[in-house]
Amino acid sequence: MPDSPAVAAKSPSSTSLRIDGTRLLDRLDRLAEIGGEDGGVTRMGFSDADVEGRAHVARQAVEAGLTASVDAGGNLLIRRPGDHRHSTRPPVLIGSHLDTVANGGRLDGAYGVIAALEVLQTLHEAGVESDHETIAVGFANEEGALFPQPFWGSMVLAGRLDALPSEPEDYAGRPLRDALARAGGDLSQLKTATWSPGSLTAYLELHVEQGPVLERLGRTIGVVESITGRIHMSVQLHGRAGHAGTTPMDGRQDPLVVAAGLIQAVQTMATRENLCRVATVGRVEVLPNSPNTIPDSVRLDIDLRDSDPTRLDVAEHTVRQTLADLARAGNVRATIESTVRSAPVHTDPKVRDTIAASAAELGFAQETLPSGAGHDAQVVADIAPVGMIFVPSIDGVSHVPVERTAPDDLVAGAEVLLRTVLKL
Amino acid sequence: MPDSPAVAAKSPSSTSLRIDGTRLLDRLDRLAEIGGEDGGVTRMGFSDADVEGRAHVARQAVEAGLTASVDAGGNLLIRRPGDHRHSTRPPVLIGSHLDTVANGGRLDGAYGVIAALEVLQTLHEAGVESDHETIAVGFANEEGALFPQPFWGSMVLAGRLDALPSEPEDYAGRPLRDALARAGGDLSQLKTATWSPGSLTAYLELHVEQGPVLERLGRTIGVVESITGRIHMSVQLHGRAGHAGTTPMDGRQDPLVVAAGLIQAVQTMATRENLCRVATVGRVEVLPNSPNTIPDSVRLDIDLRDSDPTRLDVAEHTVRQTLADLARAGNVRATIESTVRSAPVHTDPKVRDTIAASAAELGFAQETLPSGAGHDAQVVADIAPVGMIFVPSIDGVSHVPVERTAPDDLVAGAEVLLRTVLKL
Repeated sequence: MPDSPAVAAKSPSSTSLRIDGTRLLDRLDRLAEIGGEDGGVTRMGFSDADVEGRAHVARQAVEAGLTASVDAGGNLLIRRPGDHRHSTRPPVLIGSHLDTVANGGRLDGAYGVIAALEVLQTLHEAGVESDHETIAVGFANEEGALFPQPFWGSMVLAGRLDALPSEPEDYAGRPLRDALARAGGDLSQLKTATWSPGSLTAYLELHVEQGPVLERLGRTIGVVESITGRIHMSVQLHGRAGHAGTTPMDGRQDPLVVAAGLIQAVQTMATRENLCRVATVGRVEVLPNSPNTIPDSVRLDIDLRDSDPTRLDVAEHTVRQTLADLARAGNVRATIESTVRSAPVHTDPKVRDTIAASAAELGFAQETLPSGAGHDAQVVADIAPVGMIFVPSIDGVSHVPVERTAPDDLVAGAEVLLRTVLKL
Repeated sequence: MPDSPAVAAKSPSSTSLRIDGTRLLDRLDRLAEIGGEDGGVTRMGFSDADVEGRAHVARQAVEAGLTASVDAGGNLLIRRPGDHRHSTRPPVLIGSHLDTVANGGRLDGAYGVIAALEVLQTLHEAGVESDHETIAVGFANEEGALFPQPFWGSMVLAGRLDALPSEPEDYAGRPLRDALARAGGDLSQLKTATWSPGSLTAYLELHVEQGPVLERLGRTIGVVESITGRIHMSVQLHGRAGHAGTTPMDGRQDPLVVAAGLIQAVQTMATRENLCRVATVGRVEVLPNSPNTIPDSVRLDIDLRDSDPTRLDVAEHTVRQTLADLARAGNVRATIESTVRSAPVHTDPKVRDTIAASAAELGFAQETLPSGAGHDAQVVADIAPVGMIFVPSIDGVSHVPVERTAPDDLVAGAEVLLRTVLKL
């Protein structure tokens, strides 16, 4: 129904307005072909595949009669021409990111951007006039898979330029400056891409849950209450290598035995002791890692998450204390560093209520829940009220090729996003 | 004193006969330059450096008036010309191996071969006539660092051809056949290099202890009582990868938590529970090994050693039972395989007594002890009485660049070897 005057005359919160579910799903399929391999998708931020994927989405926006531009930080911005004419309030920003981890899934990030495009196209085709402009965004390099500056695009947009390296490089030492330029950005002009506090009515991000909660409870829509806080700790253990056959047990300084004790303690912290919501050791490096040699050193990474900053602090303190005790008992030298520390972020209560009301009007079962993963929304929260909408992840998995969501749930999420935009 | 008739006329157990300690130490220094780098030595079996090292030792033997040859298995054999003329008994074989691990020490193996050369040269120069020929051997590829067939040379000599692969390859798939030919061997003629049971009076191996026992006790000479038995187990754990932030603790199947429990149980087995002498986990591989991802799978290697085969069996059974319990509790799939199983080997009591008597006559403090490491002697034990002589390792370390033994102790070990050969 392009430019239907019947709809244009209605209230912006028109209950008859629906997104085109078939088009949404088709666009997700087509985007997944870019960087697609072995069932997964690899479009690491600022890689060739990422640049191609962003250009592909921009073309689709233009073909739909929308405008597409790239800001200095490399964020893709999609607008309705003339949408700002009736604005009496600041814009509503909707979207997510288009980059992926290595061999990741087809929905993480991409779903939120394609759904935002779909919402804009639906508003445009229906000629809806609103008191706020709606802008879709594809944030650049949220994952930090190639250039280790995750949340790059949202940090630029939120004006956190001081927290970014001045000349970022990828893991191989190649400059972000060049890669950013190829993507349409400009490292020297980042300031032009920043938005000030109060310049947005709200930021809304639609995303797959990446966890099993909605699926377990049989809910279609998740209203995100908070984005989890996170402390990442890097532990180095130095012992003394020795021949596995000739070194008596009583003289050993085995860092792997200490590491094993720490891995178990981290697990217990988030289970029996309930000190934080989740705690994980995902990475262990052993040197020399030879079957016949007592290890010389072990490095491991600890990830702690909770929505309560006090609980996070207690958990961090407990890890440090436990490590000190285990290292002393094992006669091993230990160092520990907290390399990432992101505070929990709460979504805006009014935005949350609007999402909940929209889902209720559409008849979708919903659940309020925390986000265990990090999202661009936690960064944008610095300058604007934010809200997040989740849809179920089948088997609760993400960042893997088998990341999936039922098609009906993908459409339902986009419907809730559209209605929330209209109601805001 | 070359060809001194005074000595030649004496009994073979002449107490005046001494090795040339300066020459021994100098030869060790010169050999360590071949494949030497960063303080360590790399002469992996059948590598260019190994072939060069063996040729170097052969040249020294010939310059000393001895003969050098390579058997089909690649073992370097050094003989006194005409030594067999007076033989009424089978030969005594003395030696060790010339190959090293990657970035290993300068003494492991090399010391036993250079000392054997020194003993032969001393007997030759003194014109000692004996009722048994004495042959020095440098066994090929004892470590298996490049071609994963450790004890290659001693297995060929002991006739264990059935236990060897017919066309061995190195880790990169290159054929041993070619490398063996370059070293002077012939894979098609291995049978010609075998010795039958009873064809040797004894095999004597002088070696650095590679452990701390002699140093701790302040003894110069170790009389090896047994070579430890060993069971090597390879464990595979398969869980379920997941996002570290979004996967609740109660649904996890984390193989690293199970691995940590197993590493601790293995440690406890050899300490508090005293089920075996030493137990080690030296190697752990985690997949995908990403800081933000619950691991999907873990592989680890367990090494158990004891001189008592029954205790080893109990320890192995305990590992399997513990793994089954931990895997069930952690909801993780586990497989375990015993990849190496070498039975404890006892040295010959008469040879042991002869070594002990020789050390006593020379006035060296001695200790009877087990060998925690494997040695060619355990293979040769299939066909001959064997004995091993240890000298102290400073700080008890081996297979590392800082592997050292006091020069006086190195000379003492060679003196004991010489005297034992004379007394046998």
